[in-house]
Amino acid sequence: MNDTQDLFPTRLERKLGMFERFDPVLYSEGAQRRDGPLSEEQLRDYEEKGFLSFENYFDKDEMEAFIQELRDYEEDEDLKLSEGTILEPGRQEIRSIFGIHEISERFSRLTRDPRLLAMVQQLLGSDVYIHQSRINYKPGFKGKGFDWHSDFETWHSEDGMPRMRSLSCSIILTDNGEFNGPLMLIPGSHKMFVPCVGRTPTDNYKESLKSQEVGVPDNASLRDLMVQGGIEAPKGSAGSLVMFECNTMHGSNMNMSCWPRSNLFFVYNSVENGLVNPFCGNRPRPEFLANRKDWSPLEPIR
Amino acid sequence: MNDTQDLFPTRLERKLGMFERFDPVLYSEGAQRRDGPLSEEQLRDYEEKGFLSFENYFDKDEMEAFIQELRDYEEDEDLKLSEGTILEPGRQEIRSIFGIHEISERFSRLTRDPRLLAMVQQLLGSDVYIHQSRINYKPGFKGKGFDWHSDFETWHSEDGMPRMRSLSCSIILTDNGEFNGPLMLIPGSHKMFVPCVGRTPTDNYKESLKSQEVGVPDNASLRDLMVQGGIEAPKGSAGSLVMFECNTMHGSNMNMSCWPRSNLFFVYNSVENGLVNPFCGNRPRPEFLANRKDWSPLEPIR
Repeated sequence: MNDTQDLFPTRLERKLGMFERFDPVLYSEGAQRRDGPLSEEQLRDYEEKGFLSFENYFDKDEMEAFIQELRDYEEDEDLKLSEGTILEPGRQEIRSIFGIHEISERFSRLTRDPRLLAMVQQLLGSDVYIHQSRINYKPGFKGKGFDWHSDFETWHSEDGMPRMRSLSCSIILTDNGEFNGPLMLIPGSHKMFVPCVGRTPTDNYKESLKSQEVGVPDNASLRDLMVQGGIEAPKGSAGSLVMFECNTMHGSNMNMSCWPRSNLFFVYNSVENGLVNPFCGNRPRPEFLANRKDWSPLEPIR
Repeated sequence: MNDTQDLFPTRLERKLGMFERFDPVLYSEGAQRRDGPLSEEQLRDYEEKGFLSFENYFDKDEMEAFIQELRDYEEDEDLKLSEGTILEPGRQEIRSIFGIHEISERFSRLTRDPRLLAMVQQLLGSDVYIHQSRINYKPGFKGKGFDWHSDFETWHSEDGMPRMRSLSCSIILTDNGEFNGPLMLIPGSHKMFVPCVGRTPTDNYKESLKSQEVGVPDNASLRDLMVQGGIEAPKGSAGSLVMFECNTMHGSNMNMSCWPRSNLFFVYNSVENGLVNPFCGNRPRPEFLANRKDWSPLEPIR
């Protein structure tokens, strides 16, 4: 059970229509807002669209060491058996590796990159910690897609994240083009919360990370959001960055090209938004999906 | 059995590497080549890439009557039960309607549109007839894709089309954008024939029209073709046209947007390239897939 009021009811037995979010999108004010690395225009863009994209934010060469590390993981049989590694449905290929910043010092340092961290703090208006990190692999010809969803909907119901005060940084490790299943986002969708139908099964994550069955927004709401805001898929070469708000509807199609796609995700949560018990009433998901142990503020590396 | 020499062996038990096509891409010469509606530059483009695209070839308003007719078909229960109508795997929704030019006088007249017919004759260098016609539906959120394939590979092995002397006209009936699963083509792929592995089962078409299991090119060949030529997906509003050579590798992804996509396909074959017995050794597929009865030259409507 949960003492905290559930402001975002979802996983219900009956459909509840989508409603406007209560929470701000941008949390910093005054000097904190003015003095951060993001310009006033960028801040307004983020508030309006629910994401910002930066082509070649990191140098392509800088990314090479990360990519090489990932190649090594692909052949690491121990890692394939590890709890944080999700294989493709019915296959022996890696779909996601969770907790990458705990596996690798190189990735851990990247979460504390000073420029990145300052932007995140400016948007969330406080110190932050890593709620979740992961790599998504999408190999050429066979990488499957991800259906439309709001991350917050899952993090709230299954992990007990009380409010919308977190965001994802997606760093593109391979060139993202029109044909290798790039991240697609619905601009403006973060302003509405779409409650989903269906009680959450125990240990739902074991299936949902391969193919989501609950926590799926209805088509009528998705259509409204798309008709209103359209769809965008930021393209860019390795090192490009997309920062998107925790409630922005996103998804991706399968990769029908020969060009593999790997994206790195760091989820930053405000230290003032620590997890409570899951609102769906189930026991908490494993630590590799939702950090409940260490909310100490990230410090920038020097 | 077949008296005609099989110049394009496929559906073999062992893999055979891809090889250069023997046949010309462009069949007209001299005055026939010079006097047709396509410019020398367009002809060279078609020879080089294996397709031509024309934004807004037909007027969008002109298309409205066709679209309304299709809407009516979607609700026609008799048509759903007809042999030429292919439903989505496991669903009651229409994926394709074959033989649309035989069902509808309006579509039949469109196959004989004077401008269209003159371009086709210029490319194929002879009179032509309709080998196959179809509508592909791809409804919002649930329309499935089509894996990469060469039409000629199927028409040759399963229908006995002897040579590469046919082409498809794809007319876009709904706006085709980046996100509703547009037709993707590999420029230059028409120059190579990719033999496929696997004997063709009897009545293969009953499954293959929903999801192709044989006649699937191998990933190594597809990769070579993509690295060489890239991928293109012509976009455009309703009324846009893509003409592509029978051996051009193409496919499409699923439609994750709310915007439905419907494409009309007319396959024109040269009257000098009439069908023989299927090279795979099976009995011929039904008439709605491969016209074996009426090869009389199409005459332009006035």
